[in-house]
Amino acid sequence: MSRKAKLFIISAPSGCGKTTLCKRLLKGKLGLAYSVSMTTRPRRTGERNGRDYYFVSKAGFQKQVKRNGFLEWTKTYGWYYGTPKKNVSNLLKKGKDILLSIDVKGAVNVKRLYPKSILIFIAPPSIKELKGRLKKRNSDNKKEISKRLKIVKRELSYVDRYDYCVVNDSISNAVSKLKDIVIAERCRKG
Amino acid sequence: MSRKAKLFIISAPSGCGKTTLCKRLLKGKLGLAYSVSMTTRPRRTGERNGRDYYFVSKAGFQKQVKRNGFLEWTKTYGWYYGTPKKNVSNLLKKGKDILLSIDVKGAVNVKRLYPKSILIFIAPPSIKELKGRLKKRNSDNKKEISKRLKIVKRELSYVDRYDYCVVNDSISNAVSKLKDIVIAERCRKG
Repeated sequence: MSRKAKLFIISAPSGCGKTTLCKRLLKGKLGLAYSVSMTTRPRRTGERNGRDYYFVSKAGFQKQVKRNGFLEWTKTYGWYYGTPKKNVSNLLKKGKDILLSIDVKGAVNVKRLYPKSILIFIAPPSIKELKGRLKKRNSDNKKEISKRLKIVKRELSYVDRYDYCVVNDSISNAVSKLKDIVIAERCRKG
Repeated sequence: MSRKAKLFIISAPSGCGKTTLCKRLLKGKLGLAYSVSMTTRPRRTGERNGRDYYFVSKAGFQKQVKRNGFLEWTKTYGWYYGTPKKNVSNLLKKGKDILLSIDVKGAVNVKRLYPKSILIFIAPPSIKELKGRLKKRNSDNKKEISKRLKIVKRELSYVDRYDYCVVNDSISNAVSKLKDIVIAERCRKG
């Protein structure tokens, strides 16, 4: 039975563990290809150019925008993020199922271009729990935390436009559910 | 997050291992409730009334038909099979996800009544393989085998009306995929 390559798009509010989940999902035996995004935000410790992101200058990013080189792009927390078109179309042509990790607006935009893409939303177990996680990450900055929480609440309002919602109550539970979704979608007709 | 109870419907051509798969799926920790069908076919060794089927006479079956007591009913290989309406609606009211094991026509009919039910088709790895399995079951009867193969081919033509197709290449693989589908569907929005 031949089948078309699938595009899985994962979004999550800040602090919901999206990066960890995606890494674990890619490490599994599902054979998913990761489409690396381009960003102007600074590289964090442990991140590698070309693996985690393509780190570019603002000018470099804008050149891609002008070239119409992005499937979608957005500005979050002052930094630009974009999905290079070529990456995605090349991988799909090869018949590879792709994992894309993008924000809610980007996800909805890609769904418009690829109506068969599968949108997965990662939700925190509760706002209270998420607050705790954000505090850990931005230890002292109360203003930053409240700004992020506001954005998170806006992002959560997108969940109904997603095909799936996985609550990240524990990394292993959530990864296991994400794997189930990928396998189930591969059994899906049409 | 509250969610509505889901109706999973599994169909498979004769000899595709549907009964074994359903039993294994029910034994798992998914908490699926099985809606027992009613039939006029004789009880096979190991089968228990009320667990595997409600075994009734032709007259008993027809009484239910007249009462409009079936969600769907059909005649296959000379025997009647029906899904008691009350079973399904009671379980759904209780918020229980249900597993229904019915033939292709019944499945399509139930989907009409419950558009959100999830249709899963179990397919043989190949027609050749299926032929072998049918031969094992109906050892000497060549006419019976060729009759069944004809029906199987007709049933296979229904696959495109299903939400999922799981190839039963090995019991454990197929059960694992069925579990993934149930879990994924529970993460599904809407």
